[in-house]
Amino acid sequence: MATFELTKEYLETLEAAISADNKQFLAAELEELFPADISSILYELDGANAHFLFSLLDTEKGAEVLSNIESDDRKKFIKEQFTVAEIAKYVNLFDSDDAVDLLNEESIEVREKVIAMLEDREHARFILDLLHYPEDVAGGLMQKELVKVNISQTVSECVEEIRAQAENVDKVYAVYVVDNEQKLKGIVSLKQIVLARKNSKIENIFEDDIVYVDTTQSGDEVAQIMQKYDLEAIPVVNSLGRLLGIITIDDVVDFITEKAEEDIQVMAGITGEAEEDDTVWQLAKSRIPWLVVGVIGSLLAATVISQFEDTLSKVAALAMFIPLMGSTGGNVGIQTSSLIVQSLAEKSGLSLGIWERLGKVLKVAMINGMVVGLIAGAFVMIEGQPEIFWVVCFSLVSVVLLSSFMGTVTPLLLDRLGVNPAIASGPFITTANDIIGITTYFLIAYYLLNL
Amino acid sequence: MATFELTKEYLETLEAAISADNKQFLAAELEELFPADISSILYELDGANAHFLFSLLDTEKGAEVLSNIESDDRKKFIKEQFTVAEIAKYVNLFDSDDAVDLLNEESIEVREKVIAMLEDREHARFILDLLHYPEDVAGGLMQKELVKVNISQTVSECVEEIRAQAENVDKVYAVYVVDNEQKLKGIVSLKQIVLARKNSKIENIFEDDIVYVDTTQSGDEVAQIMQKYDLEAIPVVNSLGRLLGIITIDDVVDFITEKAEEDIQVMAGITGEAEEDDTVWQLAKSRIPWLVVGVIGSLLAATVISQFEDTLSKVAALAMFIPLMGSTGGNVGIQTSSLIVQSLAEKSGLSLGIWERLGKVLKVAMINGMVVGLIAGAFVMIEGQPEIFWVVCFSLVSVVLLSSFMGTVTPLLLDRLGVNPAIASGPFITTANDIIGITTYFLIAYYLLNL
Repeated sequence: MATFELTKEYLETLEAAISADNKQFLAAELEELFPADISSILYELDGANAHFLFSLLDTEKGAEVLSNIESDDRKKFIKEQFTVAEIAKYVNLFDSDDAVDLLNEESIEVREKVIAMLEDREHARFILDLLHYPEDVAGGLMQKELVKVNISQTVSECVEEIRAQAENVDKVYAVYVVDNEQKLKGIVSLKQIVLARKNSKIENIFEDDIVYVDTTQSGDEVAQIMQKYDLEAIPVVNSLGRLLGIITIDDVVDFITEKAEEDIQVMAGITGEAEEDDTVWQLAKSRIPWLVVGVIGSLLAATVISQFEDTLSKVAALAMFIPLMGSTGGNVGIQTSSLIVQSLAEKSGLSLGIWERLGKVLKVAMINGMVVGLIAGAFVMIEGQPEIFWVVCFSLVSVVLLSSFMGTVTPLLLDRLGVNPAIASGPFITTANDIIGITTYFLIAYYLLNL
Repeated sequence: MATFELTKEYLETLEAAISADNKQFLAAELEELFPADISSILYELDGANAHFLFSLLDTEKGAEVLSNIESDDRKKFIKEQFTVAEIAKYVNLFDSDDAVDLLNEESIEVREKVIAMLEDREHARFILDLLHYPEDVAGGLMQKELVKVNISQTVSECVEEIRAQAENVDKVYAVYVVDNEQKLKGIVSLKQIVLARKNSKIENIFEDDIVYVDTTQSGDEVAQIMQKYDLEAIPVVNSLGRLLGIITIDDVVDFITEKAEEDIQVMAGITGEAEEDDTVWQLAKSRIPWLVVGVIGSLLAATVISQFEDTLSKVAALAMFIPLMGSTGGNVGIQTSSLIVQSLAEKSGLSLGIWERLGKVLKVAMINGMVVGLIAGAFVMIEGQPEIFWVVCFSLVSVVLLSSFMGTVTPLLLDRLGVNPAIASGPFITTANDIIGITTYFLIAYYLLNL
């Protein structure tokens, strides 16, 4: 199938068939669709219609669809439409990591009831194991389903192991090799198994030089490692080196995408994970904290300006360039800090020391300060305000230099303090530079004009 | 191996061994390291040392290391240290997509010479095929190396096919099934091959319901599709449905990460792909365009203020709140537009129409406008400027409403015009809202104070 696109017309056809209780038509349509496509249809239907359509799926496909739905939507869908027994029926077929994700969305009460009702008791044990880990570390991202063989076994025993596990393990990424103590020794790729002789010993064909992570490593680290070594799956071990599970690339891709969205929201001054279909109150709440910070910053700037009321009353034209100083400071600050934040995230570490870095930043600032200073200076002359020519030029260059300095030092300092440096690339740096820019401007005006 | 971390000490040890020409020690160290780790060491060494270390690798590992190095660094490294014959020696062992990436970094002359010198002529043909596609569409992301079987073959013939291809195809994601005209019919997973009987016919065990993309689909679309359907590899077909290649998840992960970095840079007002280790000139150049836009915007705001010089001279306190109007407008604009930009990127499409969206945005703006209006109003009273209380409150609420409107409409409009809407979440929206905010403020002051 080429990729599916959900149109308004198709949605209306489905809704009409649901109202008409046309199960045969709907079942035939569902048959043709991938689970991920069915999930995207469910987002657009109201709760009762979505549940009706969902109930037409066989349990296995239903489980896949349910594991695909996004957290917030699923929580609501389940709460409104599902009994605990129904949840258990589907979760029984989930991969353990997806099961834990779903259960973490539910109350402790529901969670315990569901686990108690799971038919597959090994699966229940897997889930209980995974529930111990925080969501954003390797332990919380891993699934328990994997195929492993003992190092002393042969290829044909390995094939039998795959056959035995085939029902539980949907996708086999590789076969993991362990010793008698369940310690991870290496992997055998499926390609190797296909090509090896049946009676070859695993110990003679397995790859012992592999990358793994510890349960406590952060999701960020896992993502960076999988990306660096181009892995589709990475084994997770405990502190004794015992194989506990694997993390698959699809979960890491989701993790990276969510991370990227969060970074953008932090930069935009939005707190919490806002989405367009949140309620008005949620949206307002996610914006208010940084707006208030911005307002308080601007009111501080107002206090600074009021200190220079005399200066302003003597040279009224100074007021014209207040926005110039504030916004140039903000823009330069964000340009500088966002590059620093990116290089911190990539840990390109060794390359540049703090002094080298600052030296370079200030050289760039010098060049750009001159360019914008000249433009603003030309404007001042054209507007016929030659008496403040030097004030504007000199202030603007100073503002560019100062805010470049701030944009470099702030994220480094935040990082050192253990705070996410990304907040320095958002409204925080704009606000800080607003105040600094305006203060610099009036101080320079005050002294240069001998007021 | 647990993951490798490059320390300053280790680097110094390597550098000392290089100066001492201690090949035996270095070869033993390189033996222990993964290609991706060796690449990260090469970044930190100077050109000659890097080339010396690199030359100690066997050709196969050297090819992996070279394919891992990032574009800009590799271009420099090759230019300074490699002969055309050397490049050809390594590129001969690259996957075709990586080979094309490397060749695209070189001049047409070098490119042609390298291709002419490739030992593996089928590989050369693959590369020539791929060079036709733009870099950011499916055709430019795909590799030609894959294992395919004819639908009429058996499992044991399929195993022979894998064996025959094993040397060229490093990682086998699945076996692709084609008909006599090379049209893609489906896939067989390696798990199915391991578990099937040797004499089973492929046509009886293959999966015909699969997702594929066309050579012309954009990298963004490919990334979204692979993420939606949780794929490790996706086949690419031409308009006739013939199988041309596959795109693997590691390339898509790199694509997603680069995209995310670009989005941040666009938001920060940086043009081109800047990196911290660019030269001072490159860094200055990447920042100047949006800085100049910002300055011009602020100078427009200056012109607006100069129109109200009379108003300002009558009520001097008005100058105090110029930064408040500008920066609140900017902050609200970015908060609003960045959510719109995200929902455009995700094509959550159907959910909200433009009027519904605007209605919601304006409700949120009303709430937040009240909150910041009250804070600013309280400040005005405390500062003892009751005569402008209503001007400040009313202006601030208007500014929040207006910039919410702008923040919603601008990205939608840009998207409609085919411009990347993300630029609306950067300095553009800040600058526009600066001007709008300040104009609104003075207009309201002018009329409310009857000046």
